[in-house]
Amino acid sequence: MAVEGGERDYVQSLERGFAVLLAFDETRTEPTLAELATATGLSRPAVRRLLLTLQRLGYVANDGTRWRLTPRVLTIGQHYTASSALIETAQPHLLRLAELTGESASLAELDEFDAVYVARVPVRRIMTINVAVGTRVPAHATSMGRVLLAWSGPARITRYLEEAPLRPLTSRTVTDPADLRMALSEVRDRGYSVVDGELEDGLLSASAPVRDRSGAVVAALASSTSAGRLAPEKLRSDTVPVLREIADALSTELGYVPRAASVERDGFF
Amino acid sequence: MAVEGGERDYVQSLERGFAVLLAFDETRTEPTLAELATATGLSRPAVRRLLLTLQRLGYVANDGTRWRLTPRVLTIGQHYTASSALIETAQPHLLRLAELTGESASLAELDEFDAVYVARVPVRRIMTINVAVGTRVPAHATSMGRVLLAWSGPARITRYLEEAPLRPLTSRTVTDPADLRMALSEVRDRGYSVVDGELEDGLLSASAPVRDRSGAVVAALASSTSAGRLAPEKLRSDTVPVLREIADALSTELGYVPRAASVERDGFF
Repeated sequence: MAVEGGERDYVQSLERGFAVLLAFDETRTEPTLAELATATGLSRPAVRRLLLTLQRLGYVANDGTRWRLTPRVLTIGQHYTASSALIETAQPHLLRLAELTGESASLAELDEFDAVYVARVPVRRIMTINVAVGTRVPAHATSMGRVLLAWSGPARITRYLEEAPLRPLTSRTVTDPADLRMALSEVRDRGYSVVDGELEDGLLSASAPVRDRSGAVVAALASSTSAGRLAPEKLRSDTVPVLREIADALSTELGYVPRAASVERDGFF
Repeated sequence: MAVEGGERDYVQSLERGFAVLLAFDETRTEPTLAELATATGLSRPAVRRLLLTLQRLGYVANDGTRWRLTPRVLTIGQHYTASSALIETAQPHLLRLAELTGESASLAELDEFDAVYVARVPVRRIMTINVAVGTRVPAHATSMGRVLLAWSGPARITRYLEEAPLRPLTSRTVTDPADLRMALSEVRDRGYSVVDGELEDGLLSASAPVRDRSGAVVAALASSTSAGRLAPEKLRSDTVPVLREIADALSTELGYVPRAASVERDGFF
């Protein structure tokens, strides 16, 4: 056994296994081996071996020549959800937000250029995309993404503005780096973000930061509705105060002590 | 390059990569490399290589000596959710069920011995476990699992009764194979399942089958409440008819044509 070569292979086959799993999506729900080889750029024998391994592990199944994912792939993400104190703690707060507003409540974290939904209480269907946990949306075009970016620190913001593909998703999407930098600064000043129709026409959402005990913004709490149901001014005047109160309550439960409050309490003024 | 040996290695490293990912859970949220080696039974150098690969792929991150999953692991499951016509189609039906009953609505599929939550509209927190999508519950102790088992076919039922660990989870859990077989037969006769406090004390749920165009039961639709809020008799008389109507509407949308109805319509009586 060539140990050194074998060890290098381990790494590559893991990468390739994920590439095969991720090649299943809404455009390729039941691909053939040949389609997966094309999608991943891997050879058919390599894809076949990976599929047979994934099948033995229970992550894929096949019906004749077509392959499909099994619900077992959800287990991997569930281990994230179950091991996250943030998500666990957030659940009752999300339910309360959905109840008080009558609108869908979401919690998102930043991953590279995207906001990822990590927990959600849907109330009604307002987006054309199926917003399941794990769904990724471009950070620049969403209130959740802007909150997460706004407090991610100057270096991260600059890197984001230089490297992220600021694609226009509707005619309203802010795509100019300078404009987006200004929008992020405004989010920090106001303490929340409202985005109206930049991800999808008619989609209106507000987000507030959730902080952990270190004071870092670890998630964005959001309330989403459709512009047809609620005017942006109503969202600001009615939803935002409730949203911020709940985001603060969640932060407090995560151990965050507001700085101003502690300064006042400690008599530092 | 030893191609044959390398090919065999591919399979193993993929298996091991998943073992490392799944070693992160609620009891080990931020493990060290040594803890992961113990949990997986792999050597430290092997775990280290897998972690570094997973880190490069963005699935894990480390803070000094401790490792944690990142929200990117949710992406894998999201590809299942997005590629499933069943889950996509079920969303508005789940929302309607939650709205009409005021209780949490869930959709589950069978995976080996478990019912896996594949979609969910939470309304209030009734279980002590955090019921996120991907959560697995033992099929024998849940109304969803019993519906999925009841129509899984005689061979599958027999294999299940022989091989599944029918653990008692409360004092009420049915654990005798003969009793469970009878319970499943009753579910088929009635067309739904009600389970009262067998998974967790005070947890009460009803489930109905969801069929695809082939007539196969592909999922269970469930409504869950607490025994304190609703008596089992009320669940049967009020919730079950709504649940069955919505499960049937979902089945129809998936292309299912009820046999009895088509026989009547075609004048075969």
